[in-house]
Parts: sequence; structure tokens; C-alpha cells
Amino acid sequence: MSDQSIQAGKVYLIGAGPGDPRLLTIKAAETIAAADVIVYDYLVNPETLVYARRGAELIYAGKRAGQSSLSQTAINHILIEQARAGKTVARLKGGDPFVFGRGGEEAEALVEAGIDWEVIPGISSGVAAAAYAGIPLTHRGSASSVAFITGHENPQKRRQAIDWSVTAHAADTLVIFMCAETIAEIADHLIAAGRTPTTPVAIIRWGTYAHQEVYTGVLADIAASRIADFHIAPPAIAIVGEVVALRQSLRWFGAAELEYSLHSLSQPATAQIAVI
Amino acid sequence: MSDQSIQAGKVYLIGAGPGDPRLLTIKAAETIAAADVIVYDYLVNPETLVYARRGAELIYAGKRAGQSSLSQTAINHILIEQARAGKTVARLKGGDPFVFGRGGEEAEALVEAGIDWEVIPGISSGVAAAAYAGIPLTHRGSASSVAFITGHENPQKRRQAIDWSVTAHAADTLVIFMCAETIAEIADHLIAAGRTPTTPVAIIRWGTYAHQEVYTGVLADIAASRIADFHIAPPAIAIVGEVVALRQSLRWFGAAELEYSLHSLSQPATAQIAVI
Repeated sequence: MSDQSIQAGKVYLIGAGPGDPRLLTIKAAETIAAADVIVYDYLVNPETLVYARRGAELIYAGKRAGQSSLSQTAINHILIEQARAGKTVARLKGGDPFVFGRGGEEAEALVEAGIDWEVIPGISSGVAAAAYAGIPLTHRGSASSVAFITGHENPQKRRQAIDWSVTAHAADTLVIFMCAETIAEIADHLIAAGRTPTTPVAIIRWGTYAHQEVYTGVLADIAASRIADFHIAPPAIAIVGEVVALRQSLRWFGAAELEYSLHSLSQPATAQIAVI
Repeated sequence: MSDQSIQAGKVYLIGAGPGDPRLLTIKAAETIAAADVIVYDYLVNPETLVYARRGAELIYAGKRAGQSSLSQTAINHILIEQARAGKTVARLKGGDPFVFGRGGEEAEALVEAGIDWEVIPGISSGVAAAAYAGIPLTHRGSASSVAFITGHENPQKRRQAIDWSVTAHAADTLVIFMCAETIAEIADHLIAAGRTPTTPVAIIRWGTYAHQEVYTGVLADIAASRIADFHIAPPAIAIVGEVVALRQSLRWFGAAELEYSLHSLSQPATAQIAVI
């Protein structure tokens, strides 16, 4: 199946999905293959670029949590200028562009500049990380709803947009994106808001990659251990809810040596902190 | 890129994504191509089956809202028996298997029977329908969270699992799956729970298909019009939240004649009902 409709002078906002490059969609792969210019983020697996044609220009836009190689304004400018030069532009983002991907902002800039554009959805990292961790986000009898929440709010914003007292009960399952640096604080909020301290939780680093790491325990383990001390660095997604317990029987992916118990971790941590 | 690891005697729970067959992942397409048996649901676009090898056995499992061609027990039985016979089994589901796909239940049945299995995530219909309707589910300044909720609860269950007074405020953006028959009632619940009656809403039928239909308005339009009378039949997904307004400028897909204003629809409807 190939598509003749990929246009010059147009920007494609593409969800590259999570780490596993085989989770790219056919439409995304075809559009990357047709692109003159590819602008890609930090969380896009570089293996995805294997689909690029010889001679395509590759522009790294960076963007780790808390830092930017290129500002959003600079990225918008590149997309607009390349499209105006008649190029077919593939803008590659980790996960899905419209789920914590800032795709809406880029689309608005393109519309304002009069540039033709479209969005190619990708598998959201939250959905994929759950699947590769063996955790159904919904499950008959235990979860009729799932909420996706950012754990990394706009750091320039002093007034927090998330009211955790409400969000704690937002859905049966909570998926907290970009939470490596904030999960301990969020766990405190969730417990304070009345979410049971024994609610199962999984923190997934590098979801769907061969080196995927999974930390499991209960909310109280994280709140107590100040998990940041354990250097759970980005990228990490947390799943909170009874469905996490299903992983005990539904785990199918990942190396055993990359499995960690938050409960057992939290014990030495508390001691260690006490000593220091 | 091809994968030698696809195994005989194993069941692959595959998310076929939404309607657009080009939104299938590469991993899903390769697994379908390698399968001896393909068991597929009503909401899987039959064009997806183009990847099947000649001679593969195709089993239609049906399942529209409210009816089943095959019971879940019967489907589980087929998956287990085919895997035991040494077949490579592709179990195709619309959207993602672990987001309202009952994939967790099938995985549990396979684990219990000792069958090897894995899950291949797909693009959730909620994510895809939003993208093709030009609606960012999250957007800096207007939505830091999104909740996915089923509008079609287990009909055998008299006690409702969803507490709409809480769910109404679950997230900035609400995506309500399988809601064609329940959206009017849900809108009533949301307004009663304090969600502003002028909150923008979009109802998307056949999201990502060429014949995608989009109905836009505000919550009060649906609640008042008893939208079921307009025969918005399944499959439909509703998006509720301020981000829906972004569609005015970010709409990029779909035929103009398949756009409907809920507000203008609700007027004649009320009159019509009054006359009858």
C-alpha cells in the first residue's frame, strides 16, 4: 500500500510512537520515506529514521524534560520556512502529537502562517508502556476509565493547573507522563487526597525498548522513599491503579534483571537517608 | 524490517487501530502476514486483512455494541484451541487491546490455559478520532489531562461503575468511547455535576474513515436534543472540553457535507418532537 497524496510544501505532524520502531504506523513510515526534511525530537527512536530517503535533511530538535536544544518558536520557524521552500516536512514526535506532544501548538503556528499540514497519530507512550508492562489500562470489573496526566507541568507556570485532590479520583487508572522527577511528590498528593496508600503502582522507564525497566510497588512506597533519590531518570511513566496487579500474571516482555521492587528499594533508602 | 520471532502456537493480541488501515503498525502488519489464523472484530477495518497470507483462516468474531456474534467465552476457546494446534494466531481488535478492548480478559484466559501470548498495542480510537477531527486532546494553557471513559458499561451490571459526579471533573478533556446510545444521558450527568453547559463537545462517527462524521456543539445541545433521536448510530466517540474549540482552526480532514452543528440540529428536533 503506498500513498500518492503526500504533498510538497506541507508539514506532517507525526506520532513516532514509543521506543519500539516496529510500532511506527505504515502511514508514518511512508510519510517519512517521502519527506525532504525530517525534524525529530529526543524521544524519537533514531532507528525510526531508517525509513528516511537518502539525501533527506535531518534536523534534531532536542527537547529533554527541562531543557531544549531548540525553542518551540525556533522549531515552528523551521517548519514554516521549510514548507515555504516547497519541502515535504516530517515533524517526528515521540508518542502521539496531540497527547502531551505540543502538536496543537505547532499546528496553530502552521495555520497562522498559512501552511498546509496534517497530523498522523501515533501510539501514545502511555498506552504502549502499559501494554509492554502487561498492564491492561481498563479491565472489566476493575477499571472503567483511565486518565492521562502530565507529571511535568510547564515549569514557567507558578500556578499549578492540576488539582490533585480532584485528579486523584479522576479515573480508576491514572497514567502519569514525564513523572521521573515528580512522582514522589505526586504520590504524596494522591495519598493526601484519599487514594489508598496500598494502591498498586508501576513506574516504567524506556517503555517498549529492550532495556525497559519496571519498578512496582504501592503508592506508599514511593511517597516514603522519595524515589528521586534512586535516580529513576527520564523518560518514565507511572501507572497507578488496581490494574497494575494484573501484571503479576500478564507480564510477557522485558528482562528479569530490569525488574525492581519499590518496596524492597524503599527500605535501604530510608535507612540511607537517615544515616546521611 | 522483518521479524523472525513470530512464533507458532502463540496468540498475538493486536490493536488494529481505528478505521484508516494505514494507521496499522508495522509490527501488526508483519504479524498478520505471518499468522495462520486471524480472529477479527466488527470494528476492525476489513482492509486490514489485505496483509493476511493466502490460505490464512479468517474468523469473524463480530461484537457490535449490545450483541455478540461469538461470546467472549467462545472467542477465548478458539484462541486457545488454535494455539494448541500449533497455529500462529492473530487476534485483531479495533483500537488498542488494553483500552476498552477486553484484551486483558483474553490474556488472562490464555495465561490460565498455559498459552504463549503477547500484545501489540494499536492506536486507540479516541486518540485517532481526535487527531482526524483536528482536536488536540491536551494543549498548553487549556488541557493538562485527558480521561478515557466508556459510555457503554457492561449492560449486565445494574450497579453503575462510573460516578459521573466525580468523572465530570476527572480531566480537562473527556473522551467517551462507545457513546452513541448514551451520550444524551451522559451530557445530562455532566451538566448536573457542574460541568459548564457551554462546554464544547464533538461527537465523531467512523473516526479516521473517509466517511467520518463530526457533530459539534456544546453540552447543553445534546442534553436538550436527546441526540439518540437523530440516529447517531455506533460507532461514535465524544470529546468534551475546551480543546474541542481548537477544531475551528485545526480542522484538516473530512468532507464538509459530513459536518453537522448540534446546535442547529437540536432546534428542528425539538420542534419535530413537539409536533409528533
